[in-house]
Amino acid sequence: MAAPSFDPGFTQQYTGPLLRAINKDGSFNVRRRGLTGFAGGVYMHLVNLSWPRFWGLVFLGYLLVNVLFAALYTMLGSAALRTAERDMGLTLFGKAFFFSVHTLTTVGYGDIYPLGITANVVAATEALLGLMGFAIATGLLFARFSRPNARLIFSDRMVVAPYGDGHSLQFRLANRRANVLTDVAADMMLMTVERDPTGQFRRNFTELKLERKKIFFLALTWTVVHPIDESSPLAGKAAADLERLQAEVLILIRGYDDSFTQVVNTRYSYRWEEIEWQARFAPAFEVSPEGHLVLDLSRVGAILRL
Amino acid sequence: MAAPSFDPGFTQQYTGPLLRAINKDGSFNVRRRGLTGFAGGVYMHLVNLSWPRFWGLVFLGYLLVNVLFAALYTMLGSAALRTAERDMGLTLFGKAFFFSVHTLTTVGYGDIYPLGITANVVAATEALLGLMGFAIATGLLFARFSRPNARLIFSDRMVVAPYGDGHSLQFRLANRRANVLTDVAADMMLMTVERDPTGQFRRNFTELKLERKKIFFLALTWTVVHPIDESSPLAGKAAADLERLQAEVLILIRGYDDSFTQVVNTRYSYRWEEIEWQARFAPAFEVSPEGHLVLDLSRVGAILRL
Amino acid sequence: MAAPSFDPGFTQQYTGPLLRAINKDGSFNVRRRGLTGFAGGVYMHLVNLSWPRFWGLVFLGYLLVNVLFAALYTMLGSAALRTAERDMGLTLFGKAFFFSVHTLTTVGYGDIYPLGITANVVAATEALLGLMGFAIATGLLFARFSRPNARLIFSDRMVVAPYGDGHSLQFRLANRRANVLTDVAADMMLMTVERDPTGQFRRNFTELKLERKKIFFLALTWTVVHPIDESSPLAGKAAADLERLQAEVLILIRGYDDSFTQVVNTRYSYRWEEIEWQARFAPAFEVSPEGHLVLDLSRVGAILRL
Amino acid sequence: MAAPSFDPGFTQQYTGPLLRAINKDGSFNVRRRGLTGFAGGVYMHLVNLSWPRFWGLVFLGYLLVNVLFAALYTMLGSAALRTAERDMGLTLFGKAFFFSVHTLTTVGYGDIYPLGITANVVAATEALLGLMGFAIATGLLFARFSRPNARLIFSDRMVVAPYGDGHSLQFRLANRRANVLTDVAADMMLMTVERDPTGQFRRNFTELKLERKKIFFLALTWTVVHPIDESSPLAGKAAADLERLQAEVLILIRGYDDSFTQVVNTRYSYRWEEIEWQARFAPAFEVSPEGHLVLDLSRVGAILRL
Repeated sequence: MAAPSFDPGFTQQYTGPLLRAINKDGSFNVRRRGLTGFAGGVYMHLVNLSWPRFWGLVFLGYLLVNVLFAALYTMLGSAALRTAERDMGLTLFGKAFFFSVHTLTTVGYGDIYPLGITANVVAATEALLGLMGFAIATGLLFARFSRPNARLIFSDRMVVAPYGDGHSLQFRLANRRANVLTDVAADMMLMTVERDPTGQFRRNFTELKLERKKIFFLALTWTVVHPIDESSPLAGKAAADLERLQAEVLILIRGYDDSFTQVVNTRYSYRWEEIEWQARFAPAFEVSPEGHLVLDLSRVGAILRL
Repeated sequence: MAAPSFDPGFTQQYTGPLLRAINKDGSFNVRRRGLTGFAGGVYMHLVNLSWPRFWGLVFLGYLLVNVLFAALYTMLGSAALRTAERDMGLTLFGKAFFFSVHTLTTVGYGDIYPLGITANVVAATEALLGLMGFAIATGLLFARFSRPNARLIFSDRMVVAPYGDGHSLQFRLANRRANVLTDVAADMMLMTVERDPTGQFRRNFTELKLERKKIFFLALTWTVVHPIDESSPLAGKAAADLERLQAEVLILIRGYDDSFTQVVNTRYSYRWEEIEWQARFAPAFEVSPEGHLVLDLSRVGAILRL
Repeated sequence: MAAPSFDPGFTQQYTGPLLRAINKDGSFNVRRRGLTGFAGGVYMHLVNLSWPRFWGLVFLGYLLVNVLFAALYTMLGSAALRTAERDMGLTLFGKAFFFSVHTLTTVGYGDIYPLGITANVVAATEALLGLMGFAIATGLLFARFSRPNARLIFSDRMVVAPYGDGHSLQFRLANRRANVLTDVAADMMLMTVERDPTGQFRRNFTELKLERKKIFFLALTWTVVHPIDESSPLAGKAAADLERLQAEVLILIRGYDDSFTQVVNTRYSYRWEEIEWQARFAPAFEVSPEGHLVLDLSRVGAILRL
Repeated sequence: MAAPSFDPGFTQQYTGPLLRAINKDGSFNVRRRGLTGFAGGVYMHLVNLSWPRFWGLVFLGYLLVNVLFAALYTMLGSAALRTAERDMGLTLFGKAFFFSVHTLTTVGYGDIYPLGITANVVAATEALLGLMGFAIATGLLFARFSRPNARLIFSDRMVVAPYGDGHSLQFRLANRRANVLTDVAADMMLMTVERDPTGQFRRNFTELKLERKKIFFLALTWTVVHPIDESSPLAGKAAADLERLQAEVLILIRGYDDSFTQVVNTRYSYRWEEIEWQARFAPAFEVSPEGHLVLDLSRVGAILRL
């Protein structure tokens, strides 16, 4: 039996019902187990965290390390830390904690300072740890900031719109940010699910040919169009057919982001219930009195039913 | 009706007069409203700010944070901050402000230090904030510096110059910096505006074929040439025709910058009134007595009228 | 004599037995001597070190620099460093060492401070050195973290599996991390060793054509397939033939890592003894009750013998 | 007159004698004047400086800023800086200088501290300046380290070697570093100089076709071969012809550096006097007793005269 002519990297045979293949945030609906690694995963996890969680984690880490070193200094006894005056308004642990803060952050006021070799060794270690820890935090912050997050906006739904003498399947996208995207290319695939004679489900993938695969600039909106001609796997199919096939249209967009001088890559998908039959997209921009084009991002998914 | 054969990503139908599509700094003349995001926009904004504004912002932020924490320390009363001597020549707010400076920058002389748990907690928080804030500033500085800003210089005007038996549309560019650009490629498009039967304006885009789309090195100048042959949309057109069509020539240049080891991408455009008919470019370089080629960047747009 | 039609960059003629060409970690089995450089090599070495070794090196460097400066301060005599109180519980070298720590890390408690111009000059130099040293460490940490280390998992063995009417040579790979890999492409080469009439060994390289060179996403596993048809250099060969030829299959995988927004590149190889004849890969994933695909990374190399 | 069929980006017409087009370090032999910019140029200059110069500049900058601030503190008089004890063994300028060091580096021992609002304001400004300055230095250090400097080694000379029934023009290259280069591609051009009827010199560029433009890995050496067949511009030319034409062979190498996960790009050239007629390259590697290939980088240019 010959090999399948197209494989987008997903499995093609399985049992049981399945959720969508590509989530709305562009991630794949795949879980991992077994030999999953650690280091790279931690970095990625910290880079992908939401900002509140990231800052929470930084704060918690700061607290934890200081509590840990405070416990160490406290164990060394009250002789290990000398203070500028007798009454600092702090308990022994309090003195130890804030001395740890002074050391970890390298602020080192000197109102509390270590006495004896043990306390000094612990402080020297903590200062190194602090510098390296904040180096990591600096790197993470920079990585988080400098990732091209020029999230594209996709229309909520695809439409099946009149096109020439027939129809076409379309979706629309725009760039949410003001950064310039050039050489933007699109790929569209149809994933369908069929039950084979042995009763197992089977995923089929077919590329959907596009009227235009690439544009030079994404300045306003781009309507990506798959003409439903005789060669299209959608030819002669109605909404009910797509539902029965559990059709999902997988989309891959690539472009060059001039602000980040990097190639960016976005995935998206529409399932059969997100296709509007007999509709077309309404304009999403207008011209201001001074002659500027004004793109209304809230209207990227605006549809006119026919 | 068939789809248009070429779409550079701009809209194709609108009402009213319009400004140029691509500004002289390479940005698109498009405004956004609706779902515009924040975080990514802030980063980009800070990276794209002019240097005086960037430094002004850093200084203002520094001042603001210190005033804020000074107010906090002042609220804690004069007992919260102990000074090395009775008279520091400062008011309570002054002491609080400079203690905040010592903490935020982690300079921590210790001539002023916090007393009691509340002041210490605020100071510990400020030290963390300072380190993270300067981490962000470091990242931004690096991002600003390391962006390939090898701005190309374009000739002020295009020329319609004799070419073989006919004519060609030309512009010239050079690299302002000494960094090496290789694999430099050009794309040229003609955008015209026409009024359709319903009275709406409509933008048309046509690719202008180039005599040479790519050069290996951009060492001196590069004259990009569109031969006006029968297949050219400019065939038989005169200056008045281009004015009537509100013609704008859109240009996209891509190249590899060896100093930044990154692909760079520049956009430019010429409108009909920036085309010089019957002219050609004058040489922009000379040979020094020692045999060096000397490129005169001020002559990239030098034209000889014919 | 005509030039060989395919050269993957390895030598083609040598004497004596040879180890495998590509190690299991993707590095080439080549040693260098002669003009090897330093600076770039040190950076790469530090970036490629294992984490325990890296941290060990950071700690050792910290210790060494502090010992060095402590020796300098000690040489300046006990008058060069003044302490907050007479008995710090430290020897002169101890005071010098921890003063060096305070200076290198810029923690600067001030319980020990330099007296006189010489000690101050040394301390000023050390503070600069400390800042630059930690700048280097920060950069290295960031470089280590931000390298796309999305190591692919390869099946332990290749299989010769039934394929259509004949057979094919296959291996399987998966992405260990959850980061999204797109536009993943594979190249496969057969390297064989033959003895020429003069008794010298000679390496031959032949490209092995793939059923599919590229997939859009690497979401689950990808089975890369070389059909053994008449045009294949493996046509009619048995296990014994490959052993005699010391066959090694060289593999190059390229893909775009969306988390690191970078192209990544992995090399791998299988030798003749790592090929399983008459087998096929077993499924490496299952569907969870909620409909999620679950990829079991420990089963990427799972084989069914036929 | 028709346009030239090949233009690598150099000028094509000039007067007077010229030095080589591409220097041995890969830079172009072009000088700039006129509108040269500043900011981007400074960054590039600092990134490209040799290490001794870079460190010298850092040290000088450190000295200069401290002298400047020391002068400011000195101008504020002896009351502006308070010291821990009467005799610090320093003059007023000495105290001011080392206080500046403590502030700029944020080491802040506190043995010298500012008194009064003016001194405090200057110190607060210096601390900010110090943090931003070291942020810039950190960024520059990282940029210097993380630039792919995998300098290739080229053979000193090209050879015209026997090839099939005729000859070929060859050069050889190897990777000095142990980093893996993949997808390495070469372009070769012949530049000749001719005097036109008006007495002006004119540069001509012709691409030299390569037997193989691209290799998958650069593990050992790569001999890049231009077969001198009838279609070659070198067909029938002897050494004297190339001298008369002032021939220079321009070379552009591109590859993907796996350690830096970046595309790297190297330029090189050979002039007519660097071509060895009737020679071939000698092997540059051997096999160690354990079966390792050992590449001898000092033999990349090793030639056997025939």
